[in-house]
Formats: sequence, structure tokens, C-alpha cells
Amino acid sequence: MENFNFYSPTEFVFGKGRENEVGFYVRKHGGTKVLIHYGGGSAVRSGLIDKVRASLDAEGIGYCELGGVQPNPRDTLVYKGIDLCKAEGVDLILAVGGGSVIDSAKAIAIGVLYDGDFWDHYCGKAEVKQALPVGVILTIAAAGSEGSPDTVITKEDGMLKRGAGSDLLRARFSILDPELTQTLPAYQTACGATDIMAHVFERYFTNTPEVEVTDRLCEAVLLTMIKETPRVIADPDNYDARANIMWAGMVAHNNIVGVGRQQDWNSHGIEHELSGLYDVAHGAGLAVIMPAWMEYVHKHDVMRFCQMAVRVFGCHMNFADPEATAMEGIRRFRSFLHSIGMPINFAELGAKEEDIPVMVEKLGIGSGKRAGFMELSAEDVTEIYRIAAHASL
Amino acid sequence: MENFNFYSPTEFVFGKGRENEVGFYVRKHGGTKVLIHYGGGSAVRSGLIDKVRASLDAEGIGYCELGGVQPNPRDTLVYKGIDLCKAEGVDLILAVGGGSVIDSAKAIAIGVLYDGDFWDHYCGKAEVKQALPVGVILTIAAAGSEGSPDTVITKEDGMLKRGAGSDLLRARFSILDPELTQTLPAYQTACGATDIMAHVFERYFTNTPEVEVTDRLCEAVLLTMIKETPRVIADPDNYDARANIMWAGMVAHNNIVGVGRQQDWNSHGIEHELSGLYDVAHGAGLAVIMPAWMEYVHKHDVMRFCQMAVRVFGCHMNFADPEATAMEGIRRFRSFLHSIGMPINFAELGAKEEDIPVMVEKLGIGSGKRAGFMELSAEDVTEIYRIAAHASL
Repeated sequence: MENFNFYSPTEFVFGKGRENEVGFYVRKHGGTKVLIHYGGGSAVRSGLIDKVRASLDAEGIGYCELGGVQPNPRDTLVYKGIDLCKAEGVDLILAVGGGSVIDSAKAIAIGVLYDGDFWDHYCGKAEVKQALPVGVILTIAAAGSEGSPDTVITKEDGMLKRGAGSDLLRARFSILDPELTQTLPAYQTACGATDIMAHVFERYFTNTPEVEVTDRLCEAVLLTMIKETPRVIADPDNYDARANIMWAGMVAHNNIVGVGRQQDWNSHGIEHELSGLYDVAHGAGLAVIMPAWMEYVHKHDVMRFCQMAVRVFGCHMNFADPEATAMEGIRRFRSFLHSIGMPINFAELGAKEEDIPVMVEKLGIGSGKRAGFMELSAEDVTEIYRIAAHASL
Repeated sequence: MENFNFYSPTEFVFGKGRENEVGFYVRKHGGTKVLIHYGGGSAVRSGLIDKVRASLDAEGIGYCELGGVQPNPRDTLVYKGIDLCKAEGVDLILAVGGGSVIDSAKAIAIGVLYDGDFWDHYCGKAEVKQALPVGVILTIAAAGSEGSPDTVITKEDGMLKRGAGSDLLRARFSILDPELTQTLPAYQTACGATDIMAHVFERYFTNTPEVEVTDRLCEAVLLTMIKETPRVIADPDNYDARANIMWAGMVAHNNIVGVGRQQDWNSHGIEHELSGLYDVAHGAGLAVIMPAWMEYVHKHDVMRFCQMAVRVFGCHMNFADPEATAMEGIRRFRSFLHSIGMPINFAELGAKEEDIPVMVEKLGIGSGKRAGFMELSAEDVTEIYRIAAHASL
């Protein structure tokens, strides 16, 4: 096991109706003037924003509002948010939404206390030294930004997608009410579930030996997702299944399942080019890429894939042919993704094989290699895209 | 799943040699004058206290020292610590040791900022409203106090053992270096491992339905302990096994494996009377009590015990006779405890069956019942002690 630091100071407030307590938690964590930041109209139409206003009013906390966060949140709205916060004297950003809204809120939180351009922190020019406190009311179980130190923003000029990270960006509090996710359509629910599982797999596949405790914690989250996801697809109103998934989504990405080990994240990188080119959901892209990545790299450590197959997907170990067990585990993963309505190849996703060279080019590997569980050259990545293009059950 | 809050703001600093960074973390978390609080002479003899002094000196942080914390830490030393901190202007308590030292440090942290008697917080007269920050260098994997909000102190006058709890008592930082546990004798290592497993089981046995994610996280910790504990018993210098156990001990008790569900804690209560009467190690007492409690209560929810048997102890489910599966799981747990050198009955522990009425009386159940997974009357507890007295493999 490698040395590590683990610091997750967020207060998680979980359960039915907890969003009505938001005023209390804003005050507890020092907020006196809030920016309510949200996405499209659903947070307004559902009455959620009204509940937030009522709770803040009851606590005598002032607020202003900024909606309109898009998937792949844009720098242009972040600048608007920074100006608004400065003009209004905001001292806490309240994100009401999913990962995009939270990431946008974190960017505003950086920008308000920074004299230069907030983008400096996303292009490697500056480190996060301070940030306004961020609070969260989560409406989608997927990205894990409610518990993570990360934010990803897209610069509209050139559609450049870049990230920043700091423990200073961990939310002070995150309110997770599974009921708020019950209106989410099956496809988006499945995309979120795929993203959650991918966050675990990116940590699970490691070259660090002797990390049994985090291996087992990874498997705990995966087994939960395998049990609960089909239940919410079949019955969107199943509160308990929604609750297990929502908490699993946080556990999957605050890094408690990733400490002490090298991590991978190549599937995320390879997928980003897909969703960038075709504007498909990140989770759907991962459903196509991740099993293809697994097939391509499994020979790097057959026994680790056998462990996944046996412990996560319930395969019987084939002691005479471990590789067959490894491949059967990957087959069952792809089959699971198909069963919850995810695409499993380029055709189902709406991607084109002839665009592979463009995507590989955009990854910018050149003659080098991407680090990770298995180092990947441009040729390796090309082959992974090809496997993804033609995959079948 | 029930509504819950989860708040674990401790910064965990894990790995080889990390205790040499203690000065940095004291400063980061606002300490300028430290009380170094420790137990017997081993922290001094091993050179650990010297390392702490050197790191604080290098950061220019002042300190005073108070050793002598006993197992079942006493109020008398807490009063000494409070006086010393007030006289020296201490603003951060640094616990260097195991659960007893950390619990004593938390009590001092309460007392320094409280006008009355710190014991008010342990006897229900006062709630914790403020406390000095506490930092930890952990030397034993067992109690989990490095990540928990709890403290238990024994009042010397009458040997009254009482607890207090508040998120304000969570350590600001906890340094966990598995190397520091390598000198621990096998028996104490096994006692610690038993305590860790008990912390999980007290949460695992619940009447709350639909808590798959915390069930699976519980099982993750248990499976880790079952794999790693025999390895450190066989080879005390096995760093990686020590590392997995040390991190599992924190995960077992900061409540990440216990949220959203009713918990039990009757085995801990029943054990306390054993270790109180005979001055045996808490972990050893738990090894005798917990399987006996399981045998007595298993009929309350046979399927939950089958889940433990199959998922944790690798039993095959006997679909024609689920109770046989449940009992086989309990048998394997007791057998595991025996294999790591733990006592499994009163004779091996040094307890006497004729003292059972005394212990039951001290539990103070009267004509009522203790709440928990299964409500327990005085007669129920008597029977559990009897099973524990006569248990065999």
C-alpha cells in the first residue's frame, strides 16, 4: 500500500426532505448571503428552488440566483457568476443540481476570491489558494462532485475541457435527498449508474499490490450498483434503491475507495473525446469504452480481472484457464450495461469508426504513452476505439 | 434506509514515516502550543516521542508533555491535563498512542474550554459545545478513536465508565503509520483485530431494511480483517497486512459503514461488565461475548445471519435448512477468533460462571429491556453469558 492523505470534510445530510433544512446548514457553515446556482428549468418547475428560497428566508439569509448551467459547464457562465457574487457580496455558493452545476459553483467559488482570471486554475497557471465555501443540494446520482475535490469546466472559445482540484473545493455540506432523483428518466439514471461504476473501476485497476481493504471497498460499491440499478430502471419510484445508489455515488468518488494505490483514469480520458465529438452523455460513452478498454488491457494482469470476475460478477474461477474467467467477467459487465439500457458499441452510441483517428489525434499522445494501469500508445488507444466500435454481446 | 448525517472532517495522514510530519500538520490545523499526551513508557523508549519533539521543534511549535495514560483512561489524569493546558496556554492536544490516549486527549480538550467539571459531559449534565482541536499519532489499530466522535473515560472513584460524543471531538488530523504497530505483541494485535470486527458487526446486525451499500461496506472491512489478521499473527513485520488492518480499523468506526441504519452495540455493553470485573482486554472479552450473542439472537433474523455466513465466511447456503447456514457462519467466526489466539469461553478468558448474576445486575436492566437488534431482558443477557461461559469449537 502506498502512503496517502485522505481528507473529506464535507458534512453529508442524507434522506427524505432534507433539502428543507438548507437554511440551517448554510448558517452553520458561515453563509450569510448566498448565490443559488442551478441548471435548466427542472429545478424551478419541480418547486425545488421555491423550497430553497423558503428555507433561506426562514433563516433570514439573503440570496441571489443564477440558473442556466449546461452539461459540460461553460466558462462564460462562471464569469457571470463571479461578477454577480462580487456585486452582491455573496459569501457561500449553493449548487442545486448535478455534477455540472456543482463544478460551475466550485469555479465561481475560486474566481470570487482571485484577482486574475479564474481560468488560470484550469490551465495550470495557478493553484487554488482560497475559495468561497460551497454547499450542495444534489439532484442526480452520477458525477460524485458532491463529495470530490474536483471541478471540470469547458472554455467556450475552442470547447477546451479542463479540470482543477483542491481540498479547498470540497463542499462544506452536501444535501442528498434520493426523492429528488426519482423523476430522472431511465436513460439518465443508467448513465449516472455507469459513471458511478466507472469511478470505481478507474481505481480498482491498479499496479499497486496489497491493497485489500480498498479492493474490497471498491467491490462493495460495485455489488451495490449491480443489485440496485436494475431495480430503479424497473421501478423509478423505488426510494430505497435510489437511496443506495445515491450514497454509493458519493462513496465511489470521494476517494475512500481509492486511497493507497495508483489509479488509472484512461477510460475517462478516452471517453471524453467521444462525448466531445458527438455530444453524447458521458455515462453512455463510458458504457462503450470501459469494457473495450478492459478487453484490451486484461492480459496486463489476468488475475486482477479474474478477481473482478469472481468477486463482482459472480463467475466461477476457471483454474485451468484464468483468462477465460477474466473475459467472462468483462462479458458480464457489458451484458449488465446492455440490460440497463446502455449502448455497447459505436452504432448504438451514434459514433463513427472513421472518426477514430480524429479522436486519437485530439488525445495528444503523439509518440509517447498515457500513464495508467497499462501504459497506452496512440496505437493502443486506436485499438481500444476499434474494439468499442464493433463490440457485441 | 433511514435519514442520516455523516461528517468525518479529520485529515488522515497515512503511511511510513508520516509521524515525522506532525509539526506541519499541527501548524496547518492552527496549533501553536501543544500538549503531547501519551501512555506508558513504550512511546518514549521506542523513540517516537523524540521524533515528535524534533518535528515540533523544526516548526518552532512549543509543547509540554503528559504521559501515564492507563488502559480505561482515568478522570484523575484528565484533571491534571486540563490544569497543565490552562497553565501553559496549550491550544492543541496531540494524542500519541491508542484509543485510551486519544479518549483522554478528547476529555482534556473538552475540559480546557469548560468552566465547570469536564465530567458533566460524561454523566449527561452537559453537551459538548466547544473543545480544543485534537491531533493524533496512532500506535494501535483497534479502538477507532482516531476517526470517531467518541471518548470513554473511567471515574476512578467507583470505577464508573462513561462516554461522551460530539463531532467537535473528531480529530483535526490523525497520523497512521502502520510501522508503529509492528512491535505490538500478537495477543494485543489479535485483540485489536477483534475489536475492529466487533465495531462492524455492531452495525451490521440491524432491523433497518434496504441498506445494501452499508451492508456491503461492512462486509468489505470484515473480509479484509479475515484475510490480513492471520498474516500479521504469523509475521508481525508484514507491513502491508498491518497497513490494511490499520486503515480498516478507521473505516470500521468513523461510521461510514454504519449510516442509514439502526445499530446494535449490545455485545459491547455486555462485554464491558466482563472486562470491568476481571481487567481483561476489551477485544478478548468481545471474542467470548460476540459469538455467544450471535447464537442467542440468530433466530431473530435467520436470513441476516445467513448473509453473514455466505458473504463473509464463505459458507454454502443450505436452502433446505437456512438456520444450519446461520449457525455455521457463527461457528466459523468463533473458529477464526480461536485461530488468531483469542479466548472463546470463560475458562480461557479467566472469568467465572458464578459471577454472571453480578454482571447482569451491574448492567442495570431491571425489569426492562436493552434496545438493539433484538431487545434483551436480564434473563436474555444471563443466557448469553451462559453460552459464552461454555462455548467450544
